[in-house]
Amino acid sequence: MRARPGEFELIAELFAPLTRGAPGALGLQDDAALIRPRAGQELVVTTDGLVEGVHFLAEDPPDSVARKALRVNLSDLAAKGAEPIGYFLTLMLPQDRSFAWIKGFARGLARDGERFEVPILGGDTTSTSGPLALSLTAVGTVPRGRMIHRSGARPGDLVFVSGTIGDAGAGLELAQAAKTGPADLIARYRVPEPRLGLGRALRGLASAGLDVSDGLIADLGHIAEVSGVSIVVEAKLLPLAPAVRRLWREEAAVRAAVCGDDYELAFTVPAARRARVIAAAKAVHTPITEIGRVEAGAGVRLLVQGRPEKLTKRGWRHF
Amino acid sequence: MRARPGEFELIAELFAPLTRGAPGALGLQDDAALIRPRAGQELVVTTDGLVEGVHFLAEDPPDSVARKALRVNLSDLAAKGAEPIGYFLTLMLPQDRSFAWIKGFARGLARDGERFEVPILGGDTTSTSGPLALSLTAVGTVPRGRMIHRSGARPGDLVFVSGTIGDAGAGLELAQAAKTGPADLIARYRVPEPRLGLGRALRGLASAGLDVSDGLIADLGHIAEVSGVSIVVEAKLLPLAPAVRRLWREEAAVRAAVCGDDYELAFTVPAARRARVIAAAKAVHTPITEIGRVEAGAGVRLLVQGRPEKLTKRGWRHF
Repeated sequence: MRARPGEFELIAELFAPLTRGAPGALGLQDDAALIRPRAGQELVVTTDGLVEGVHFLAEDPPDSVARKALRVNLSDLAAKGAEPIGYFLTLMLPQDRSFAWIKGFARGLARDGERFEVPILGGDTTSTSGPLALSLTAVGTVPRGRMIHRSGARPGDLVFVSGTIGDAGAGLELAQAAKTGPADLIARYRVPEPRLGLGRALRGLASAGLDVSDGLIADLGHIAEVSGVSIVVEAKLLPLAPAVRRLWREEAAVRAAVCGDDYELAFTVPAARRARVIAAAKAVHTPITEIGRVEAGAGVRLLVQGRPEKLTKRGWRHF
Repeated sequence: MRARPGEFELIAELFAPLTRGAPGALGLQDDAALIRPRAGQELVVTTDGLVEGVHFLAEDPPDSVARKALRVNLSDLAAKGAEPIGYFLTLMLPQDRSFAWIKGFARGLARDGERFEVPILGGDTTSTSGPLALSLTAVGTVPRGRMIHRSGARPGDLVFVSGTIGDAGAGLELAQAAKTGPADLIARYRVPEPRLGLGRALRGLASAGLDVSDGLIADLGHIAEVSGVSIVVEAKLLPLAPAVRRLWREEAAVRAAVCGDDYELAFTVPAARRARVIAAAKAVHTPITEIGRVEAGAGVRLLVQGRPEKLTKRGWRHF
């Protein structure tokens, strides 16, 4: 077994190839990266930290850990309507973490770097006496003034969500219980799909948007709070995968609405743009479902058979 | 004693004020921050991770931990000739870390945010079962094409360093041994001074530059490697504080050259610009010292009484 190389060797061998030749990365050989925005572009920047045992499991394959770290950040860019241009990685490694693990991690970044055409631009590696931890900062661009904010929802707007929700929460439950279950669900937990095409398509259509990480209801609560509105969601309209319906049965809709880690986009749209937003989603081959409406007031209500459901767990807090 | 608030409360109470009203921070209430570069500006981005027990000591005051985290990143921007415009913070907190500690940490960020007029633009807080860890990403701007790279040193250039070196290494030695010693040295270890004014003044004058974190000789080695040159440093020319000379005596110059964590700027300058660079440093009230020269070849030599010193420890590796 090969001993683990030092910091500089790790960077040169495993991480420098991830720059994909991006000139601003300076081969990861400088103190900083250089970003040259084009005229009329604005930059959208997001950061997420992931800690083993909190955001992923010690037994998760290293390439899926890397891919999740990148994808949750790309998902934030997608929710803002941004196109990714690169990312920065701080990797905190336990001393006994094997070189094979780190290589697997880099392989995951390489795979998704290629898939999403996004280079690493810079980073830092350090040791830690604690669990493996990392922080990833992703940078994207939007045309001036076109970022989708959380603050633009208005009474009368419609509420949509992409894909299906609850899959990742069900997958986590199965993975934690070391239960066998539909591989799709566990894959959805491990490697979420950033909705980059949909995000771009929603520029100028969505009045507000975000990605579902804390849980659909909790996240819509963020839109409601920042926009100063109330949001009503109909449980029966929630898009659920058949496997989630089978696993959680009559509780499926309510559990899916709070379980989090979906990384689907939830967004509001003025009612007059309903047809346009449905056409735009279709054009990028991303299913979306109308699940509720924006009203005057505050907070989020999940209606089950017409009555607001009491939600005991308003969503994940990674804290 | 007040219980520690949750993630959202921490952000609203302690971190949102650190935005200093920067519009792009969106009150830390969105998924991402928005940066609007001015025409002709390029962005310089750098990331550093810090782990308790590796980069700072558990007994270090929380405000100085925060200030160091910010300053080591500002120092990277300084070395590139960039002006800071904001930063992103991922904070990984042990469950038992007190609210008082976190408040102290935020106070340190507030103090230096004011001092350097730099807002927080975004971030993430999460829990960890390990030591407190954080990653800070700083963003700065330079006029197009004016970033100072590591790669521009040419044979015949002069080598300079700012301030004095070895202070932080001596301070760390004192702090680790729990020895009393000159308070200045410990302060230099805990709270380095980013040389932002000097960095800006060096645009168009320095052919290459970086900040001294791994150790003067190791860092000049980075310039030598990336520039494809050799660098010769005269031990007797190294700028040392009287307290460092007293502590380390006849070994002072050699130890100072390898001990690291100085966060002074080391840079190369074409010989024809010697007078201009000395005047530019004077204008920003930052002492600089000419310590060597760039030659054809590879590697760094530290000359002691005319002979290359064998260096057993080529600098810190935080790894």
